[in-house]
Amino acid sequence: MAKKSFPLSKVYSLLEPGPVVMVTTAHKGRTNIMTQSWHTMIDFEPPVVACVVSERNHTFGVLKATRECVINIPTVDLAGKAVGCGNTSGRTVDKFKTFRLTAAPASRVKAPLVDECYANLECRVVDTRMTGRYNLFILEVVKAWIDPSRKDPRTIHHRGRGAFMVAGKTIRLPSKMK
Amino acid sequence: MAKKSFPLSKVYSLLEPGPVVMVTTAHKGRTNIMTQSWHTMIDFEPPVVACVVSERNHTFGVLKATRECVINIPTVDLAGKAVGCGNTSGRTVDKFKTFRLTAAPASRVKAPLVDECYANLECRVVDTRMTGRYNLFILEVVKAWIDPSRKDPRTIHHRGRGAFMVAGKTIRLPSKMK
Repeated sequence: MAKKSFPLSKVYSLLEPGPVVMVTTAHKGRTNIMTQSWHTMIDFEPPVVACVVSERNHTFGVLKATRECVINIPTVDLAGKAVGCGNTSGRTVDKFKTFRLTAAPASRVKAPLVDECYANLECRVVDTRMTGRYNLFILEVVKAWIDPSRKDPRTIHHRGRGAFMVAGKTIRLPSKMK
Repeated sequence: MAKKSFPLSKVYSLLEPGPVVMVTTAHKGRTNIMTQSWHTMIDFEPPVVACVVSERNHTFGVLKATRECVINIPTVDLAGKAVGCGNTSGRTVDKFKTFRLTAAPASRVKAPLVDECYANLECRVVDTRMTGRYNLFILEVVKAWIDPSRKDPRTIHHRGRGAFMVAGKTIRLPSKMK
């Protein structure tokens, strides 16, 4: 997928609507994908994200060891693969292979981009002090990519127990917020 | 609006899709409403939420002083009022009065419910250790309410600079997640 660089100052606009994301990592020659939606922006620029990764997930230890990941944002056409990645563990499954996803090289981190996702945020772990109590990693986005052809991406949003809300239309209101 | 009690074990399903929320507080006889969408679930039960409130907001000091709030979830019919609450400050504006919203009493906290919102989560601040560095408050939801007539609530999701995605249809997938 032909991607272009996306300004770091606008990364909040990708994560703030609350999409399901696929977090990729690479460690000791193995890549992995973890699906989740417990994340929030905590600063605009540089973009900083708080992200919950359970200590039961393979990704927890990998994030601690490598201090790098990519947050990939899928659209509804990838919903089945995103759920598949969420239902399996990187301890036993090569998820790129199993779910026929393409690992593209990132520019600033060793973790791969999920090429099929419309946006990819290369991240470094900048604070692990809350991983003990809350499984909360603080990530700084150091490089962002987007597919410029996707103007109104139909992201998916977890409602729990197999239900996902698909992004609807965009409306405009006179908000003074960024 | 006729609300019924909502199980704490399912609160994640309301916040996980990433809706814009209206955070209400009460302090020294004054109520306030702050609109935001920088929040994430961090635990299922009891439901725990991490929520960013800038130190520039009136609500920051009130949350520190009272250690209570309500997270109210509006649907698209309230989008104009939610944006109005976001464009103004509780230092100078009585938001319930200005935006003709109804303050209903909560059961476990002094902060009011926004009666027009389809769901209301009464919260206590349980950890302020990250408010200095990240403006991040840790909230425990102690009581939740929902309008049982709203089966597919059209929540709003901030895309930035006046753009809001409106929740679309819900699809079902064979996810093993809660």
